[in-house]
Amino acid sequence: MAAAALSFLTASAQQSLWDISEYESVKVNPDRTVTFCVSAPKAVKVEVVGDFGSASLAEGEKGVWSCTTGPLESELYNFRFYVDDLPYNDPGNTYVQRDISNLMHYFIVPGNPGDLYSVGDVPHGTVSRVWYHSDVLGKDRRMAVYTPAGYETSGNKRYPVLYLLHGMGGDEEAWLCTGRAAQIMDNLIAKGEAVPMIVVMTNGCTKHQAAPGESVEGNFRPYNSGSSDTSFEAHFKDVISFVDGRYRTVRKSSSRAIAGLSMGGGHSYWISMNYPKTFDYVGLFSAAVRLRTAKDGIAPEMYEDVDAKLDRLFANDPKLYYIAIGKDDFLFNENKAYREKLDSKGYRYVYFESEGGHVWRNWRIYLADFARRLFK
Amino acid sequence: MAAAALSFLTASAQQSLWDISEYESVKVNPDRTVTFCVSAPKAVKVEVVGDFGSASLAEGEKGVWSCTTGPLESELYNFRFYVDDLPYNDPGNTYVQRDISNLMHYFIVPGNPGDLYSVGDVPHGTVSRVWYHSDVLGKDRRMAVYTPAGYETSGNKRYPVLYLLHGMGGDEEAWLCTGRAAQIMDNLIAKGEAVPMIVVMTNGCTKHQAAPGESVEGNFRPYNSGSSDTSFEAHFKDVISFVDGRYRTVRKSSSRAIAGLSMGGGHSYWISMNYPKTFDYVGLFSAAVRLRTAKDGIAPEMYEDVDAKLDRLFANDPKLYYIAIGKDDFLFNENKAYREKLDSKGYRYVYFESEGGHVWRNWRIYLADFARRLFK
Repeated sequence: MAAAALSFLTASAQQSLWDISEYESVKVNPDRTVTFCVSAPKAVKVEVVGDFGSASLAEGEKGVWSCTTGPLESELYNFRFYVDDLPYNDPGNTYVQRDISNLMHYFIVPGNPGDLYSVGDVPHGTVSRVWYHSDVLGKDRRMAVYTPAGYETSGNKRYPVLYLLHGMGGDEEAWLCTGRAAQIMDNLIAKGEAVPMIVVMTNGCTKHQAAPGESVEGNFRPYNSGSSDTSFEAHFKDVISFVDGRYRTVRKSSSRAIAGLSMGGGHSYWISMNYPKTFDYVGLFSAAVRLRTAKDGIAPEMYEDVDAKLDRLFANDPKLYYIAIGKDDFLFNENKAYREKLDSKGYRYVYFESEGGHVWRNWRIYLADFARRLFK
Repeated sequence: MAAAALSFLTASAQQSLWDISEYESVKVNPDRTVTFCVSAPKAVKVEVVGDFGSASLAEGEKGVWSCTTGPLESELYNFRFYVDDLPYNDPGNTYVQRDISNLMHYFIVPGNPGDLYSVGDVPHGTVSRVWYHSDVLGKDRRMAVYTPAGYETSGNKRYPVLYLLHGMGGDEEAWLCTGRAAQIMDNLIAKGEAVPMIVVMTNGCTKHQAAPGESVEGNFRPYNSGSSDTSFEAHFKDVISFVDGRYRTVRKSSSRAIAGLSMGGGHSYWISMNYPKTFDYVGLFSAAVRLRTAKDGIAPEMYEDVDAKLDRLFANDPKLYYIAIGKDDFLFNENKAYREKLDSKGYRYVYFESEGGHVWRNWRIYLADFARRLFK
């Protein structure tokens, strides 16, 4: 490590912190092509890599590199630049999404489903970050809560609740950020395609109180952490109890749904079977249905007697047991085996098999499809 | 513009979107020195520029550049790298703050005042993004609202309200993000240095409904926009009416404060004099007290009869009229002239003159100082 000679901040240095860049790093054109642009006069090579593909930018005047794609299908896309192989986000493009430990730019190509992920000209729900106490874990924790438009002005009206869980490495911000859950719910509700509901987004890593930077842990490095030791499942009764106490909920299984992606699908799988008369709607999105570790968790019995618990769960005839996964998902075979088990028992479920793999593109689609089916 | 040949996303490209970087780009050491680190094997020059100064990084093994500062005073610092003069944020460092149109990394050196800006091991308030309707503007708009810990469980208890306004180019996210308002309020209230209060953070640019990316305007480019045409001031009665209707507020001037920075200081100046029996506490932080443009705004009378309005305002003997500014602020002379005017009339105010200029470091200090004086 070199000891740095710190210089006083010069006017030009300060200026550089605040200046807006002259070029827009991404622009969605009316014909659904997308133009990327980077000012990098000293670069030899500039590329863009996104979940739409990758491309090389060509150098133009004054060291401004650019390229334009062909027309893209409507979607929310993430991307990043590489400037001489250096992974690069434009500091003057403030539109970034965090997925676990990475920031990526994003843009939306309008149409279907892009419009569903965009802020619509519709009534907007309230999104709150709320702290609750868990007796089971002995600590305060943070959750994100979406209350639909009209919640605050609807007197004593009570609402159904969707508990929406993220995957390994995620946190209570994941569904709101990359998942676009607030936009999806606002738009579906405004169109009458989903009923007004409360959406509760918890933090599935019980080691942490909150998302990175939002707890006393400060700016820790996010990584692929989660809970697969029964602690999250065991503490979930504190979550339900808090939500039912704080919000005007309908406290019945017919007005409760739980769904999650990947690890959160695993959590939904375990929670639904361990709280058998609590949720009439269960959604497993690319679910890690075999998720589990220690038998020495705080409630090891939660990971035991699976068959008996599934018997009990399905004996209650849940209104919807929903399984969705992409053809290329690395958890496809695990889910196939689970479906075969359900089939062998004659348990009813809805199955949605999409293209693609273990990606947010699919989870947004699954959320919208699932939300349309709830509480009707 | 070159037409790009889009390739299908390869496994390695996708991988690169999700990988965590091997190196921490900033680390605050126990001795309050700070180590910066960038992996840039092809770079010739790597620098860091922040509001603490600037430094060159030295290249070590495998193209990893680093440097360590001397001990820094406790503060929240912003910084950015420059890799061969390219402004660079590390995509694997997810801690960024947006100031208008720029993303900057940040870190906090513990102590005083850094601890005040950190998430403490204290009860946390709820932070909500809420939509309200303005009849004056004829549109829905977005605000951020902080309700203190205990608000939801305190029955019919009513709370005082601080209306906290941002500067030119900012929005309803500014005080929460770079301003650390939620952390400051949590920590002050927990220590008993501030009374529990609601903090309402509006969007001071009436042209927009909401912060960038949060309205139907989509991902527009943020820039130095604001309102200095009476529209914000005129619509503020809708804000107060909404807040008093939605939250359990004490609807008295003795329980209302308004404060803002720069343009928001100007707004506070105009609003306090045009709503003379509404706020007993007024805070002008680096205020643009001469802020005004058109005489053809929607309520031009709001920018007229200043002397008579100030007479009326001070005749009500406000509990606190607070002016704070830095010695190097470009608005220093404007504020000096205003203070001289107040002095000549014999109006009482509290004046806090700090070091430094027109920067967030000062506005955080002013907020904490102001909040400690409210509603006592």
